[in-house]
Amino acid sequence: MTDTALHPFDRAVALQPVAGQANLYEGHTSQDYWNMVGPFGGATAAVLLQGALRHPQLLGNPVSLTVNYAAAVVAGAFQVEAIPVRTNRSTQHWLLQLTQADETGEQQVTTTATLVTALRRETWSLTDLPFPNLAPASDFEPMSPAAKGVAWPKQYEMRPVSGAFPTKWDGTGETSRSQLWMRDAQPRPLDFLSLAALSDIFYPRVWLRRATPVPAGTVSITTYFHTDAAQLAEVGTGYLLGDARAQEFRNGFFDQSAQLWSESGALLATSNQIVYYKE
Amino acid sequence: MTDTALHPFDRAVALQPVAGQANLYEGHTSQDYWNMVGPFGGATAAVLLQGALRHPQLLGNPVSLTVNYAAAVVAGAFQVEAIPVRTNRSTQHWLLQLTQADETGEQQVTTTATLVTALRRETWSLTDLPFPNLAPASDFEPMSPAAKGVAWPKQYEMRPVSGAFPTKWDGTGETSRSQLWMRDAQPRPLDFLSLAALSDIFYPRVWLRRATPVPAGTVSITTYFHTDAAQLAEVGTGYLLGDARAQEFRNGFFDQSAQLWSESGALLATSNQIVYYKE
Repeated sequence: MTDTALHPFDRAVALQPVAGQANLYEGHTSQDYWNMVGPFGGATAAVLLQGALRHPQLLGNPVSLTVNYAAAVVAGAFQVEAIPVRTNRSTQHWLLQLTQADETGEQQVTTTATLVTALRRETWSLTDLPFPNLAPASDFEPMSPAAKGVAWPKQYEMRPVSGAFPTKWDGTGETSRSQLWMRDAQPRPLDFLSLAALSDIFYPRVWLRRATPVPAGTVSITTYFHTDAAQLAEVGTGYLLGDARAQEFRNGFFDQSAQLWSESGALLATSNQIVYYKE
Repeated sequence: MTDTALHPFDRAVALQPVAGQANLYEGHTSQDYWNMVGPFGGATAAVLLQGALRHPQLLGNPVSLTVNYAAAVVAGAFQVEAIPVRTNRSTQHWLLQLTQADETGEQQVTTTATLVTALRRETWSLTDLPFPNLAPASDFEPMSPAAKGVAWPKQYEMRPVSGAFPTKWDGTGETSRSQLWMRDAQPRPLDFLSLAALSDIFYPRVWLRRATPVPAGTVSITTYFHTDAAQLAEVGTGYLLGDARAQEFRNGFFDQSAQLWSESGALLATSNQIVYYKE
């Protein structure tokens, strides 16, 4: 299989081990997932997660991932360091970093992350949030990603149910909540990597709430995974329902709280982020 | 002022710089904030935050703090390492670690954390969640902390409004939501450290939802701060309203989503955690 036969997402999260360095991988940014001034944050989250998932010492599956966007990632090569700092009987704690060489060749940190993975056992379980009672994805039109120079939205099929991307920037916003059906535009079975990326798919809540396009960017995102390989396989290439809203906009930062459901009503992931905005 | 003249919380989060080590501090666990098998997780979060807040290179105030509880902290001395990994014009990214010496004297990681601090400017701001319409704290009885060997609840005045600690473990739980008025039992003006600690005050949601006392413990907590020094000073020693609920209980882990409000309806912090539970 040649590289171009790979799904664009698999190319974007591809990592090669650095010879002789146990915890170090090399990768390359993807133009397919390019955002305005760097890669789509969801792709960066996924590539950091990938550093742990392909590590020979990995224990279990992802439970909690926090990614901090410290500086813009520039187009080109990067390194991912994935350190298993503590391995317990059923949980494992990771430190992850994405670095890029500066003009002198020295690696500089652009992104930091922490990850908890775990071997999970079947226990009493319960979804304590009602599954939104929405019409199926086929009832809603796919949005057409438009903005020039921004490639990543083309990688996703997004069918807004409510809170669609503003069409008029006239300051009339009334809500910060968006619900949409979503999946990879080119079919790809859901896995932890794409679930991590999809958790960051929601455009800045401040644009919706204000109907005003101020500069904004995610500073830190935390995703909790409530699923396993068997359930991911059931979802396959089906739609997810994304539901996101803000709670507080205050002096340059707002938070966003999101749920990612399967079509059959399984709450696969809950995700929160804090986002910088201007003005 | 002698040590015993300090507030118990100030003793619990006290750190001393290690001579000749720019990013390293020493501290000691506090019996006042002891939980069942280690310190109250909120106190551990606060002491990690303290490592950055007293660092000479600190820029601005806390925006986002994630703390990962990798291993139990034992009674005794510990070290906090606080590394400013990236300083931008208005934001700063930190890596924090709490370590304790093992029997050979080598420092082992018990807790990892990441922190974002920022210089904040006044911007358009909005609380996009309704302030719960509750009667004042004085209308509700303080709960009497009881459990043997668990000291930390005595450090807080907690007045449950709903979702109080179960009095019967009979499997009849119906909700995962708790609302309570809370503040330090011994008055102490609110600051970022105590706000970080209070974000972890809620007992495990799985106990409430099931009315069943299974083993449970926080694995990772993320708190977003939406406040500043002036607003904290206004709150002073007043009550906060804590509101917490779970979204998903699944195969050994549940999430908790919480809001911390001032009495006058300012949303000071929003916090999420993922919690291990058994059975």
